[in-house]
Amino acid sequence: MARILDTIDSPSDLKKLPLEKLPDLAQEIRDELIAVASKNGGHLGPNLGVVELTIALHRAFDTPADNFLFDVSHQAYVHKLLTGRRKQFNTIRQAGGLNGFMLRTESPHDCFGAGHAGTALSAALGMAKARDMRGGKEHVIALAGDAAFTCGVSFEALNNITTTTKRMIVVLNDNEWSIDKNVGAIANYFNKIVTNENYSHLHERAAKFIEKIGGQTAVKMARRAEGVVKGFLLPSVIFEELGMTYYGPVDGHDIPTLIKTFEFLKQQDHPCLLHVLTEKGRGYEPAMVKRKAFHGTPAFNPSTGEAASSGSPTFSQLLGDHLSKIAETNDKVVAITAGMPNGTGLERFQPKFPERYFDVGIAEEHAVLFAAGMATKGYKPVCAIYSTFLQRAIDMVIHDVCLQNLPVVFCMDRGGVSGDDGPTHHGLFDISYFRCVPNAIHMSPKDEDEFVDMLHTAINHSGPIALRYPRGSGTGAKVKEQPQQLPIGKAEVIKPGKQVAIWFYGRMGEMAQQLADQLEAKGYSAAIINARFAKPMDTGTLEFYAHSSDLIITLEDHVLMGGFGSAVLEELSNLNLSTPVVRVGWPDMFIEHGKEANLREVYGLSVKSALEKAEPYLQKIKPAKVA
Amino acid sequence: MARILDTIDSPSDLKKLPLEKLPDLAQEIRDELIAVASKNGGHLGPNLGVVELTIALHRAFDTPADNFLFDVSHQAYVHKLLTGRRKQFNTIRQAGGLNGFMLRTESPHDCFGAGHAGTALSAALGMAKARDMRGGKEHVIALAGDAAFTCGVSFEALNNITTTTKRMIVVLNDNEWSIDKNVGAIANYFNKIVTNENYSHLHERAAKFIEKIGGQTAVKMARRAEGVVKGFLLPSVIFEELGMTYYGPVDGHDIPTLIKTFEFLKQQDHPCLLHVLTEKGRGYEPAMVKRKAFHGTPAFNPSTGEAASSGSPTFSQLLGDHLSKIAETNDKVVAITAGMPNGTGLERFQPKFPERYFDVGIAEEHAVLFAAGMATKGYKPVCAIYSTFLQRAIDMVIHDVCLQNLPVVFCMDRGGVSGDDGPTHHGLFDISYFRCVPNAIHMSPKDEDEFVDMLHTAINHSGPIALRYPRGSGTGAKVKEQPQQLPIGKAEVIKPGKQVAIWFYGRMGEMAQQLADQLEAKGYSAAIINARFAKPMDTGTLEFYAHSSDLIITLEDHVLMGGFGSAVLEELSNLNLSTPVVRVGWPDMFIEHGKEANLREVYGLSVKSALEKAEPYLQKIKPAKVA
Repeated sequence: MARILDTIDSPSDLKKLPLEKLPDLAQEIRDELIAVASKNGGHLGPNLGVVELTIALHRAFDTPADNFLFDVSHQAYVHKLLTGRRKQFNTIRQAGGLNGFMLRTESPHDCFGAGHAGTALSAALGMAKARDMRGGKEHVIALAGDAAFTCGVSFEALNNITTTTKRMIVVLNDNEWSIDKNVGAIANYFNKIVTNENYSHLHERAAKFIEKIGGQTAVKMARRAEGVVKGFLLPSVIFEELGMTYYGPVDGHDIPTLIKTFEFLKQQDHPCLLHVLTEKGRGYEPAMVKRKAFHGTPAFNPSTGEAASSGSPTFSQLLGDHLSKIAETNDKVVAITAGMPNGTGLERFQPKFPERYFDVGIAEEHAVLFAAGMATKGYKPVCAIYSTFLQRAIDMVIHDVCLQNLPVVFCMDRGGVSGDDGPTHHGLFDISYFRCVPNAIHMSPKDEDEFVDMLHTAINHSGPIALRYPRGSGTGAKVKEQPQQLPIGKAEVIKPGKQVAIWFYGRMGEMAQQLADQLEAKGYSAAIINARFAKPMDTGTLEFYAHSSDLIITLEDHVLMGGFGSAVLEELSNLNLSTPVVRVGWPDMFIEHGKEANLREVYGLSVKSALEKAEPYLQKIKPAKVA
Repeated sequence: MARILDTIDSPSDLKKLPLEKLPDLAQEIRDELIAVASKNGGHLGPNLGVVELTIALHRAFDTPADNFLFDVSHQAYVHKLLTGRRKQFNTIRQAGGLNGFMLRTESPHDCFGAGHAGTALSAALGMAKARDMRGGKEHVIALAGDAAFTCGVSFEALNNITTTTKRMIVVLNDNEWSIDKNVGAIANYFNKIVTNENYSHLHERAAKFIEKIGGQTAVKMARRAEGVVKGFLLPSVIFEELGMTYYGPVDGHDIPTLIKTFEFLKQQDHPCLLHVLTEKGRGYEPAMVKRKAFHGTPAFNPSTGEAASSGSPTFSQLLGDHLSKIAETNDKVVAITAGMPNGTGLERFQPKFPERYFDVGIAEEHAVLFAAGMATKGYKPVCAIYSTFLQRAIDMVIHDVCLQNLPVVFCMDRGGVSGDDGPTHHGLFDISYFRCVPNAIHMSPKDEDEFVDMLHTAINHSGPIALRYPRGSGTGAKVKEQPQQLPIGKAEVIKPGKQVAIWFYGRMGEMAQQLADQLEAKGYSAAIINARFAKPMDTGTLEFYAHSSDLIITLEDHVLMGGFGSAVLEELSNLNLSTPVVRVGWPDMFIEHGKEANLREVYGLSVKSALEKAEPYLQKIKPAKVA
């Protein structure tokens, strides 16, 4: 049977459908989401939760004239399916295919890209104000999950909305889960609104609202395990006190009610917040049961929901396991995550040390300050935050941790290109933003075993120290029984050599070995040095190799601007040494999503490219031995 | 007559005084604050406002065992006077003297330093949790102005307090003013609490509280111009909903009430927020009338309150005036400040274009996102944010503005060492954190005239662009009638020369000239090049001078790590040129407060130091002409 979905080439096609066909369309979309995500991986759970919500939005509003800003925008798959990208949808997260997030360059329906949390309200307010100033009529709608309200910037936006515009709609998509379970007072607060039993004092506006849309908003869905029927219209004081008019909560899977509600909100001349209740993973049993796993999933078997085993443990898993081991004998160690216990591996630490584990919500700034506070009292906080998300807290890294020289450990997961997630998730700037900060140390391991050594080294260091490691696993190196304390700022010579010195940072060890092999095959004597530290640099070893070599090649999974190779150039300049340096790393542009190996090939982080860059220098060097 | 103040060598001396002497002590402290600030400059207004509050805190609590965290900590002068630093107080903000902010290295009573807003609650929570974990008894008190609640991170902290500790005290010092008048819904909200006429429903806990401390908390102070008696105990729903127990508002100038209140709060086993009303500038007429000017003031005549005229206009003033001129003919230009209309000069723009001016509060993240949103709709937002404060929004610069290549102009005031304010306010990292970001442009003018050219250039550019300029004024260069559009990425050769090429960035032009003069005096031919752009670098001109010179000297008011000189090294390496480079800039350490000229002398940003660094290279160069 032909799918309704196949008739939707744009939101206007959706608007032509009879209302009673929409639940069928929702089912077809769910099937499509599951089919594609099982092959490509992706944020399945969040998208299953917003199928009806997105259909209702596109019925009530008109993109691209109207503007939808999805917070994080990992839940925009349905939006992509309905806005002319249905045929390419099976390419999502694949090289050359659709991005997994909103992207302004991908479609005029994507008015604002995202990937990090908490940005939608502020950006929407900018758009709403611009619309007001030029007398536009379009609607601006920010859709944010409950977790976005643990981000401070969402409150900065709320503080400014009512004084800035009279027309803006915020949809609070409340599924009680961010990536992991939402935390803190705001989560409790949302829950309190929803579970409040006192329906007698309906707010006047709320009462009018019920009347207007026909009393359809009573929440009929069962919430959480108990399955109790809860919720109703109830004004939310926080939003009201901040000047927003609050409506809700409404059932986020009831399409007719949602459409009526949006039609009502379109008429309002005050900023509105609509509280919508949705179920993450709705309609797919495995995603309902394993919400964490299906927030963002690798490819899986659609009938069972089982993902293929990933082989050797990831660096994240190693962090969870080995930090737990360290914590057994060091009672000062505490672990902090900003809403990512699963992604950072700290979910393995939490059950063992629940009292020494802190998930502060998606609130990186607070996470780092909280760590700084604990450090002043003799604790050793380990902040596990992705490289790209730590960008949120650079000021705290500088102003609070490093300026006060406090012993906070930053475990920067996803350092380097992060593959399928694309430019918002690549961690390509952390060497640059850490290296300029006094007192900071920046290190990165060549493999899993060295990672554990570095974790121990960081815990034993008495100042700020950052440990960067990639997504997924490394070379698969076996972790030795007893970890080793590494000397700060000391490189490891893996293989001596006399003509070309290959200095690699972090995960680039395998490429360094291949490059050395090829150089040796050409008759050149090549040294391989594992830098271990981007700051402080091992000046002594660098000086030795700068003297003894004709060429230095640096390898890094980071932008070249201000990165590891740049640090090498600075040291050589300080030493007044003019040994030429060929720097291999990411160019000065945002790198799209794709398989890491492909991206490396395309952007010059391959052995072939490195040899091409080195060729003009090699031509001037007489091979030490004939190949 | 001997001062009471002179008997206070520590908080324990304060505790010995009879209660009735404390108002006299308060007066002596005010006199001291005015006397010292009139000579040294400083944050007079905020400190005059917290004299009684600080006295009461030190009566009720015991630092250093107990912990006071002052948000921003510009209001810690009274605390410094009472904690053993009275004799050095007249050295505050002077080279080698006391810092103008809290500093852990200065006193055990300063448990957490600050300089940026919004950090106190989060850091205090970390301390409180650490105390709980080790079974400590000490109290942790965060003192934050109303403006701190426009910072998102304060809300991130509030979201975590009640789930993390049972004992922590937040003092909301509400003076309705941050640096400028506080903005947004939170400010309105605080005002609503204070002016609420409905006293009939006192919260149960609040009622108990009144009973306990004897009904002393009635607010007797007249607020604002009307002088109406307002306020009383009233629970504040936002804080209550977030799980804090709210008390207040209480009169922040009534010492006995404050002491009793703190004694009461010490006994509580739940996190408390005390709302205190204070008057900024209290007790000094000029500071009451000109609150903005006396938030942070240069030296002034204590009897009149008049500061000495500062001579030529500052870069901040130029921004306000020239952005206004541009806005007259370009109706897309809008101006955004994060709570600093005075400091950024935008207070000169605001009266002319009130509809195109946005003060979003101390909320840099929101400011940049708001700008990004407006930029998507064809506006040209100018975000005027100090270099050091833009550190708060680096993720938005990367993830929202540059990734989407949106035409936002960043006017980074206080780029470079910021003198008396010290390490929290120096803007020494912005080249590093901007340069690594794709699509970003970074420029800095040699003088006032070029600043205006660059402002025009920025406005006419179609992507993200940052303009960095120092605190205060420049060379005093007259601004020409018609500004000039500068070619992006093109340097200006100020003086050709053949042996030494001096490349300077931004404000270092005068030093470049002096250095060239000295080199010429030694017989060397020296070129002077005004780089104008740190990114993109003028590769062509650099290549020319790298070929034609024996030595390149770079000058920058920025850390050397990842800075302008580092960019020069990268370009030379890309070009495979080995001309030696001597880089002059700030070393890899946090720079204390002091006069800029002194600091430059000490840390090697002087002509003398540059020549010393260059000497080994110069020895190998034969002077072109005999001196």
